[in-house]
Amino acid sequence: MKKGKKFLNSSKQIVSETLDGLVFAYGGKVHRLGSANVIVLNQMRPGKVGLLVGGGSGHEPLFPGFVGKNLASGAVAGNIFAAPTPDQILLATKAVNCGQGVLYLYGNYAGDNLNFDLGAEMAADEGIETKTVRIWDDVASAPLDCITDRRGIAGDVFVIKVAGGVAAEVGDLDEVYRVTCKARDNTRSMGVAAAAGTFPETGLPTFDLPDDEIEIGLGLHGEQGVSRSKLLPADVVTDQMLERILSDLPYVEGDEVCLLINNLGSTTMTELLIINRRVHEVLNQSGITIHDTLIGAFCTSQEMAGFSISLMKLDDELKKYYDMPVESFALVKGAIS
Amino acid sequence: MKKGKKFLNSSKQIVSETLDGLVFAYGGKVHRLGSANVIVLNQMRPGKVGLLVGGGSGHEPLFPGFVGKNLASGAVAGNIFAAPTPDQILLATKAVNCGQGVLYLYGNYAGDNLNFDLGAEMAADEGIETKTVRIWDDVASAPLDCITDRRGIAGDVFVIKVAGGVAAEVGDLDEVYRVTCKARDNTRSMGVAAAAGTFPETGLPTFDLPDDEIEIGLGLHGEQGVSRSKLLPADVVTDQMLERILSDLPYVEGDEVCLLINNLGSTTMTELLIINRRVHEVLNQSGITIHDTLIGAFCTSQEMAGFSISLMKLDDELKKYYDMPVESFALVKGAIS
Repeated sequence: MKKGKKFLNSSKQIVSETLDGLVFAYGGKVHRLGSANVIVLNQMRPGKVGLLVGGGSGHEPLFPGFVGKNLASGAVAGNIFAAPTPDQILLATKAVNCGQGVLYLYGNYAGDNLNFDLGAEMAADEGIETKTVRIWDDVASAPLDCITDRRGIAGDVFVIKVAGGVAAEVGDLDEVYRVTCKARDNTRSMGVAAAAGTFPETGLPTFDLPDDEIEIGLGLHGEQGVSRSKLLPADVVTDQMLERILSDLPYVEGDEVCLLINNLGSTTMTELLIINRRVHEVLNQSGITIHDTLIGAFCTSQEMAGFSISLMKLDDELKKYYDMPVESFALVKGAIS
Repeated sequence: MKKGKKFLNSSKQIVSETLDGLVFAYGGKVHRLGSANVIVLNQMRPGKVGLLVGGGSGHEPLFPGFVGKNLASGAVAGNIFAAPTPDQILLATKAVNCGQGVLYLYGNYAGDNLNFDLGAEMAADEGIETKTVRIWDDVASAPLDCITDRRGIAGDVFVIKVAGGVAAEVGDLDEVYRVTCKARDNTRSMGVAAAAGTFPETGLPTFDLPDDEIEIGLGLHGEQGVSRSKLLPADVVTDQMLERILSDLPYVEGDEVCLLINNLGSTTMTELLIINRRVHEVLNQSGITIHDTLIGAFCTSQEMAGFSISLMKLDDELKKYYDMPVESFALVKGAIS
């Protein structure tokens, strides 16, 4: 396939047109703040802690697709693979603030960290309290003793789901922050890529990978992973990834977890289901109970071929908030009983 | 990307491992019939009309992902891109029969037609009444006056949703058949491809398309479309597809429709949302109201790059059944109010 052979209009309008398309898809439940790259819920309850998610575009449906009932109150989008700007973060913060402050929730990348921190300072100047939870679930990106250097990958989905639940129930920023940190700290992920995606503006690949190799641990923007090898059978790759994920928290016999198998772009559902089969087998053999399984393209890197596996260890509190029904573009779930 | 670079195990076990992975994903709500490629709901209500969907594998999550509450009672899967066998169809028919007969619902392909008809004969010999609705929504595949020669494409999603709703409410096979036919007759679709997928067993492309061309109207297995062109802007392609879809039923001012923008495989959500923006603009300009929008990979052709647009025109009866909440692997929706 020719690189960058995509159905687009003007390369300058990609983010704007994507957000307009998303607003239409929501059927009247969210709106865009003028021409800003910010999407917010139409209806927000006074006294609720605002939950603002965001990051670079190109990972759709992450982040703006997670605005919804019992999920994020709003999302701010940067350009493709680039952090949102502080002024747009401020705009979004003001829009989702209902008087109880705002929790920022985003992947741990330098640009996002810098700009959200600047946004937080500007919000403080306007009297809005914020707290920040950076998601660093990718075990391949740094050793455990440098966990705050790790990148975010699809574990965002679990952390947003729990944060949305607690923010819907508890009108206290410190408490929303505490539970969201726990969700983040109980979540681990790892990805693998078989082929790069392409930048939509240029058609160039996001990284280089030989035709017959895969890269385990590769990041969401093509950041270097932990190993390259020839293409391996699905079960072998899955086992290698699980070994690293399980030993990191660690997840042990008797634990109860949520499982996410995330399509990074163009991996087929056929493959994802075959991988899911193996993950369930391994976790069953390890005495780990799977409370819920999500499979799909939640956090993508354009048409990258590859997938990530995420686990979140539950306790009673996390389970209560995870199990709340949600309704958004990217994730719809009834009450889990 | 190297063709066929997929995360698989044995090529002979693809369908079986996919179905096992799907059963795990359902978390105890469905089971597989032994080693047959049949998935059925664990709990079926006596007196309900059974709804059996099926077809070749490789289009995941279609069909087995649509087994669920207010959706299909069971699904029977063939090998990759091949119809299920009559004996497996019979097995599935017996498993979903609750005493009121079984409706067969599948895409209009020669192999499926033949094998489901044989399955129906074998079921009749065992005293089970069946009726059949073949889905022929793809306007590109034959002229309107030869509508029964048309192929099925992602319109299946709408027809299964309505059929599941009526089967949940009405315990009469003739009535389920009547409403399901109306859903099918009110649905039109068209696809476009930018690149072929690959057969998972061989790694070979499912069809040939020059690197700089797209094919409008191409079928789910690479069947010939209506035109080839150089890559066009998203809005131009969308307008061409909509013109053909709208004029076919026709859909006219004052109509209310459901809209599906289906990812045929590796098209990014960025693109799908940009396309959704244009579809909403055009339908709004045409005075057609969009009741609900679905966007995602519901009916795929492995990692084919491309998408399809489907519309289903609603009346009060179709709307009532479409609006029922559903829960399945491929589609979860709360009650639409």
